[in-house]
Amino acid sequence: MKVVLLGTAAGGGFPQWNCACALCAAARDGRLPSRTQECAAVTGNGRDWWLLNASPDLRIQLAATRALWPGPGPRDTPLRGVLLTDAEADHVTGLTELRGAAGLKIYAAPPVRAVLAPARAALDRYAPWEWADSLADGGFVLAGGLVVTAHPVGVKVPKYVPDQASTEPGPWVTAYRVEDLATGGVLVYAPCVGAWSPVLDGLCAEAGCVLLDGTFFAADEMGTAVRPGAGQAAMGHLPVTGPQGSLAALARYPGARRIYTHLNNTNPLLDPASPARARVAGYGAEILPDGTELVL
Amino acid sequence: MKVVLLGTAAGGGFPQWNCACALCAAARDGRLPSRTQECAAVTGNGRDWWLLNASPDLRIQLAATRALWPGPGPRDTPLRGVLLTDAEADHVTGLTELRGAAGLKIYAAPPVRAVLAPARAALDRYAPWEWADSLADGGFVLAGGLVVTAHPVGVKVPKYVPDQASTEPGPWVTAYRVEDLATGGVLVYAPCVGAWSPVLDGLCAEAGCVLLDGTFFAADEMGTAVRPGAGQAAMGHLPVTGPQGSLAALARYPGARRIYTHLNNTNPLLDPASPARARVAGYGAEILPDGTELVL
Repeated sequence: MKVVLLGTAAGGGFPQWNCACALCAAARDGRLPSRTQECAAVTGNGRDWWLLNASPDLRIQLAATRALWPGPGPRDTPLRGVLLTDAEADHVTGLTELRGAAGLKIYAAPPVRAVLAPARAALDRYAPWEWADSLADGGFVLAGGLVVTAHPVGVKVPKYVPDQASTEPGPWVTAYRVEDLATGGVLVYAPCVGAWSPVLDGLCAEAGCVLLDGTFFAADEMGTAVRPGAGQAAMGHLPVTGPQGSLAALARYPGARRIYTHLNNTNPLLDPASPARARVAGYGAEILPDGTELVL
Repeated sequence: MKVVLLGTAAGGGFPQWNCACALCAAARDGRLPSRTQECAAVTGNGRDWWLLNASPDLRIQLAATRALWPGPGPRDTPLRGVLLTDAEADHVTGLTELRGAAGLKIYAAPPVRAVLAPARAALDRYAPWEWADSLADGGFVLAGGLVVTAHPVGVKVPKYVPDQASTEPGPWVTAYRVEDLATGGVLVYAPCVGAWSPVLDGLCAEAGCVLLDGTFFAADEMGTAVRPGAGQAAMGHLPVTGPQGSLAALARYPGARRIYTHLNNTNPLLDPASPARARVAGYGAEILPDGTELVL
């Protein structure tokens, strides 16, 4: 199995267009590496590729990744479909860039499928796609020899959904476990996680590689950066640090390669020279640039 | 007035992610300049900037344009709003990238506002924006000293709209005339035009610069490129050449700088060495790269 990290930033990207914080300014000046919005691609055979989420930067990300270029026929493409972990704008907007592509298959949990129904109707007018329940029947098989299961890891409803209070609770946020039948390699893809859980422990115990929600380094990060008092507790992302953070949990699984992704523009991990980065490295976890290819 | 051509390609951009035609392949290999999806920015005073459409590539386009960078306050931005010419996906998707920005004002014609009502409701949940009718009251004034009028130039309904047959005809596609009160400079912005009309003659006669729909060079272009038999007659763009084309019409206005934009990935004008490019140049019309700045 090959995995390409197409993008590694949270919604808004890095730099974020309307943010003049020190980190974003450093990215704009080229002093820190820019990052596009979180998205990945996976293949079992090098010919059939599946997207993990569809970021708003997808067109640029596909253009930057030779393995995903079209050909040899004028409309041939190695892209077979998209696995959505949630319905957040930064994970689904890229579907519009894929409109008109023939025969794509989209996997998502029931609440995500329901809220995207109007978008699906619009996209179907360019080319009909098949939509499937990622949580049904205990799993599914992808062309290229990958076996996938989806696992609920959060309940946060996207902000754009009206009537939040009356929205049914449900598996709004899932993680994927992707296993290569040929190599036995296991990827856990969890770029959006509300809280650590036994489900994640079970997934990490079997994984060769974990791509984990690294949105916020600290629980008070948003409050201390650009929006005093805002905080990010309600944003549905467990922080890296702190007693409920993911770093201590990840430390229990030294057998897996552990990579933080979906980094918010407020996150000090964006700076390779930061104490935060050194601390994470001390636990054996990694921060990688856009375009990194992993083999499992 | 300053105008920046943020992007100059039609929907899908150049190269288009799923197109392996000779032109797209040349762009991927770096033999032809890539182009992001059509979008522009305009300012009268250098401090207050207005977007002309909101392309899906907007985040990348804003990052590439220093004049549109945020600051000095952490959430200060020179962006005041967006003027939409139509509701096509490649002109409105970028609104999602602007979500959460305070105090933006969006101008659009009534059919465009109506079809975007669900999107507006979703975007308002991040930060409320003011939406205005671009065709009301004979015009409007933008911060920075620009006076704008909108003019219907097409009736094409976006493909994603259901029940096309029962959709009310109306001004789905408009052009903008932007005048700088201080310099007297006049920009005509018409990246989507169904057919030439006396309205366009009137606008061009007064313009210092015309940004015009250059989607297709020839009327049979789509049919001869990648989708045999498809044709583009129904796509709502007048071709550059031919008896009903725009090039002959533009030739009547040598006093204006005439620039083709919204170039489809099938358009031979994308190649600076093409006979098509020489022919257009012979008429005094220009093809310019992304990022070009114009002063009027």
